[in-house]
Amino acid sequence: MSTRGLASDLPIGEQVAESFDDAPEPLRSKLRIITKHLHAMIDELNPTIEDWNAAIEFLTRTGHMCNDVRQEFVLLSDVFGVSSKVETINHSDIEAATESTVLGPFHMTASPARELGDSIDELGKPDHVLVRGRVVSTTGEPVPRAQVDIWQADESGFYDVQVPDIQPAGNGRGLFRTDDAGRFWFRTVIPSHYPIPTDGPVGEMLLATGRHPYRPAHIHFIADADGYETLTTHIFVAGSPYLDSDAVFAVKPSLIRSFDDCDDPSEAERYGLQNPFKVAEFDLVLAPQNDD
Amino acid sequence: MSTRGLASDLPIGEQVAESFDDAPEPLRSKLRIITKHLHAMIDELNPTIEDWNAAIEFLTRTGHMCNDVRQEFVLLSDVFGVSSKVETINHSDIEAATESTVLGPFHMTASPARELGDSIDELGKPDHVLVRGRVVSTTGEPVPRAQVDIWQADESGFYDVQVPDIQPAGNGRGLFRTDDAGRFWFRTVIPSHYPIPTDGPVGEMLLATGRHPYRPAHIHFIADADGYETLTTHIFVAGSPYLDSDAVFAVKPSLIRSFDDCDDPSEAERYGLQNPFKVAEFDLVLAPQNDD
Repeated sequence: MSTRGLASDLPIGEQVAESFDDAPEPLRSKLRIITKHLHAMIDELNPTIEDWNAAIEFLTRTGHMCNDVRQEFVLLSDVFGVSSKVETINHSDIEAATESTVLGPFHMTASPARELGDSIDELGKPDHVLVRGRVVSTTGEPVPRAQVDIWQADESGFYDVQVPDIQPAGNGRGLFRTDDAGRFWFRTVIPSHYPIPTDGPVGEMLLATGRHPYRPAHIHFIADADGYETLTTHIFVAGSPYLDSDAVFAVKPSLIRSFDDCDDPSEAERYGLQNPFKVAEFDLVLAPQNDD
Repeated sequence: MSTRGLASDLPIGEQVAESFDDAPEPLRSKLRIITKHLHAMIDELNPTIEDWNAAIEFLTRTGHMCNDVRQEFVLLSDVFGVSSKVETINHSDIEAATESTVLGPFHMTASPARELGDSIDELGKPDHVLVRGRVVSTTGEPVPRAQVDIWQADESGFYDVQVPDIQPAGNGRGLFRTDDAGRFWFRTVIPSHYPIPTDGPVGEMLLATGRHPYRPAHIHFIADADGYETLTTHIFVAGSPYLDSDAVFAVKPSLIRSFDDCDDPSEAERYGLQNPFKVAEFDLVLAPQNDD
């Protein structure tokens, strides 16, 4: 290990990078990269002691805000575009595959298993909305028995875990299996746009910067099937406010879906909906698993 | 505010930077700098989803480790050399001034006020050690009635707050005022080198990298006087192990002091020590306050 401080004329960032010389790979390389950019950031910030104290306090409060139903560091990653970027980096580069987007902080409870056609709204809201699609491969084959995990906020913009007195656990969530033709369908309500939680340090930071905390309306999906890359994505509700300024930088135009009016009594009866109803279509196109 | 995602071809890091356009200065510039380096770091790291999950978990555990007597984020800043760098950036660039070094995570309780010559060892250890010096300006004038805050680990390497069953609160700490000639002196024990706490995520990270967690033996000082910049520094015990590999990158050669044997019965009597005793000399040279 190299000598630090005492006999070293190296800048401190390089001393720190060298201190990881004995670490096993890939840890060594990762820590050297983190160190390099962290020190470059501080060189440019030129922080005062008060700035440093504020940063320590911010991180500490962010940590203390985290619990079983709240992940403030995920929120921090989200509002700096890091979550969206990491999801994009790791997504298949096969163009035919459905684009991915962020997991978000609300996938913390298991979705209840449901049958195709079930409603994920357990409160019997008067909305009559159908979401349907297929899980298919990038070469067009249907993927039968694929798992499709769904979760969403309700028409007021709240997830079940945020308002346990109003929504039962599992409301707005469902774990489905596609049928033999790779199809899935379920009934729901159209979710609302909503603010990410602003009662913690991340929300305070956003408000201090004049950034709004809203996400456009969306429904989360994770599609999972043997032999395919897991796909984490959303559909965004066409026409929702904030589609052009998502607080977490997750909107991709290919993921926007309109919820169209459908006036077809036989279709309504088939899906157990009142006529007319609204319908959104979304196919989940999975890339083959990359074994390298 | 610019359009994100939807109509933007900008890389996500630049979209995030633009999202701070409405923030007041200097917040706007700071957040743009943080965003730039954060995204450059992620571009080079090219993290997997598992890496990202591990980072979120590490930060969360670091936050949960923080309490009134433990600051794990300060420790994280320390082992990446950030604390030492920020302290150095903010220190006077007047060369005559005493060099500064890190505050460290153990300055969390107020030092008890003591009289010049008191012992900061409340347990009556058999060591006979004198530390003495003067607070002076960079132009050589003594600074009378300057406040000198001292804290140190004991000869086993522990601070009072770490072993409350063994050391009374305030042991190893003292708040002194210099006399009319700017002098200070106190009795103590020679501190031991010690490991930074390894029972948290920061310690686990160090051990995983093969880095040792030790700091060379040192005594902390903060000198504070009207009209002068506050000086946060240490003296390091000459000959201590780890002077060339301090876990927190805080050693500066100008701060190393030998604890020399002194065989002088009249001096021993004057300071209330048994003859012979050990003595270390350390002048704290303060830069004039910078009003710009």
